[in-house]
Amino acid sequence: MNAEGFAFEVEARDGAARAARLTTPHGEVETPCFMPVGTKATVKAVTPRDLADLGAQVVLANTYHLYFRPGTQIVAAHGGLHGFMRWGGPILTDSGGFQVFSLEGTRRVRDDGVEFASVYDGSRHVFTPELAVRLQEELGADIIMAFDQCAPGTLERAEIEAAVERTTRWAAACKLAHGRRDQLLVGIAQGGVDEVLRRRSAAEIMDVGFDAYAIGGLSVGERGDEMLATVELMDELLPGDRLRYFMGIGDPVGMIEVIRRGVDVCDCVLPTRLARTGSAFSSEGRLNLRNARFAADLGALDPACDCYTCRTFSRSYLRHLVTQKEMLGSQLLSLHNLRVLLRLAADARAAICAGRFADFANHVAELYSAGG
Amino acid sequence: MNAEGFAFEVEARDGAARAARLTTPHGEVETPCFMPVGTKATVKAVTPRDLADLGAQVVLANTYHLYFRPGTQIVAAHGGLHGFMRWGGPILTDSGGFQVFSLEGTRRVRDDGVEFASVYDGSRHVFTPELAVRLQEELGADIIMAFDQCAPGTLERAEIEAAVERTTRWAAACKLAHGRRDQLLVGIAQGGVDEVLRRRSAAEIMDVGFDAYAIGGLSVGERGDEMLATVELMDELLPGDRLRYFMGIGDPVGMIEVIRRGVDVCDCVLPTRLARTGSAFSSEGRLNLRNARFAADLGALDPACDCYTCRTFSRSYLRHLVTQKEMLGSQLLSLHNLRVLLRLAADARAAICAGRFADFANHVAELYSAGG
Repeated sequence: MNAEGFAFEVEARDGAARAARLTTPHGEVETPCFMPVGTKATVKAVTPRDLADLGAQVVLANTYHLYFRPGTQIVAAHGGLHGFMRWGGPILTDSGGFQVFSLEGTRRVRDDGVEFASVYDGSRHVFTPELAVRLQEELGADIIMAFDQCAPGTLERAEIEAAVERTTRWAAACKLAHGRRDQLLVGIAQGGVDEVLRRRSAAEIMDVGFDAYAIGGLSVGERGDEMLATVELMDELLPGDRLRYFMGIGDPVGMIEVIRRGVDVCDCVLPTRLARTGSAFSSEGRLNLRNARFAADLGALDPACDCYTCRTFSRSYLRHLVTQKEMLGSQLLSLHNLRVLLRLAADARAAICAGRFADFANHVAELYSAGG
Repeated sequence: MNAEGFAFEVEARDGAARAARLTTPHGEVETPCFMPVGTKATVKAVTPRDLADLGAQVVLANTYHLYFRPGTQIVAAHGGLHGFMRWGGPILTDSGGFQVFSLEGTRRVRDDGVEFASVYDGSRHVFTPELAVRLQEELGADIIMAFDQCAPGTLERAEIEAAVERTTRWAAACKLAHGRRDQLLVGIAQGGVDEVLRRRSAAEIMDVGFDAYAIGGLSVGERGDEMLATVELMDELLPGDRLRYFMGIGDPVGMIEVIRRGVDVCDCVLPTRLARTGSAFSSEGRLNLRNARFAADLGALDPACDCYTCRTFSRSYLRHLVTQKEMLGSQLLSLHNLRVLLRLAADARAAICAGRFADFANHVAELYSAGG
């Protein structure tokens, strides 16, 4: 590891799946793990103490949004994100690359970066690799991401190829610009679901050389089988002794399937976003609590779950909260949905260590895909 | 006490202020106390476990709203409100009287009750004293309220007088209709801020005879000095050995001033409602967290407060949450505002027991009225 205070060790393998341990200056992360998303320095509707109780180990925050609100200098004045959002464990920031390409508004891609309009007030800004690194140094997360161009597999091949080229050039610029030795900089491979472009992007990013690698540009509209085949390819291409982060997957079955193919860490807004629309993961498939069939259902949300929500409240009560738009409904479903993914990842780790991952993964796929 | 499983004992007096203990089938309540409001069977944005951690002893829920959503039968199927909202301590329900008179929509007051339109779907309904009692028996709170007509002191005298007459007649009907011996039925005195009508209402309600008495019809638009003078009058009129509940006050200074005048219990939506608009009680007066002066303020919301919010987060972070409309902002400010009132009531009790209530109350008035 080039980064100081970090270590990564694979402790067990079962097929392509791996159980590993990442050491950071703010504590250890046992993988596979799910990383809750705290876009604006808050995992929506969940306090940091509840997040720790749920078993979260590492939290993601977003450079794009924090750049605009409240501004990286205000976060830096708190000693960085740990002091600002009061999450004591490891934190990862994404670079803002995904947002400048995906959020509404006109943008102009230049060789040195991206010119775009703020979603907050329409003002024009330019993000470059150098700026993305500097902002992430100010935000002070443990793990920071190279500035990349996320190119979905649904784009024209020429566009994906151009994104691969830019992503490589920007990755090198990020590495050069990065000065904080107490942060782990992660390189991101793109290439859509095109095998040639994926091989090229992986080779180029590994050639720049990073302590850890992320698989970007997936779970953004491509077919499921293409996505999984690409993860399998990445397992073959990426070094076996480095952390692998799949950006943006967080449904139970999808998470387990990428873990099956060698992914260590994943993140997604899905659990908390679903919660705010009144939906819950469950071992009976996805449940929409607005459904009238829950009106008089005295049972637990998911009898198989150990979370506060499932140990405490009835489906009937949760439906009441959701239909009445009570904030507590979003809070309780967020706790539950996060707990499902955090526990599944922990269970996946145990299954890998016990050499019974395939059975476990098949069981999860069977349970959580019902009605999903 | 006529109610089974209940007891009320005044343990100390200091001037008109009292420290007492209410025993209920779901535990004891040490008074003076503030009762958080959980209108729709949830104290907005606060889990029951956090509510208990804050020091809440008794929670209020609302018959009107629960009658329409989810319906009293669904609550009854959970074994009542305790099982439904999973608050293990004492619960009080108001009768719905306040809502049928105050919520929007046409209504027709009849001798036997009130005909009104539901705020949920406009459907026509009639609440009578008998129905209000039956619904509260189904909801199963420990403490239930007589069905009354809340007549603000700002109304014409004839209207207030008519409300006093109805309230007495309905109180007698409620007492007659009430069958559950494991519930404490509270009589409510009305009369606006008219001394003659207050005396008449108190005498008539006491003539019907209840285990506990509520002071209704105050804090609904009348002048502050008239309100306090009326509370003083009620202290003189109501029996000294029965619980006294002031309906609807919950700012720090107002609560302390009615405690000073012999009130044991009060409730209000103010702490959680203020929280949702980004405002906080503090020992520097009321703070609006939207204010730009907090943007880079690294200090605690209220350095004098012991709540999770104040022990953990900066004003700058709270302002970020509030201005970004993050749910966590409402959650954290709700915890704080509730804790302020719960702690002030507990401190008031200690001051009464130590015979130094006047000094304490003056100190609170000085602190919390600043900028308020």
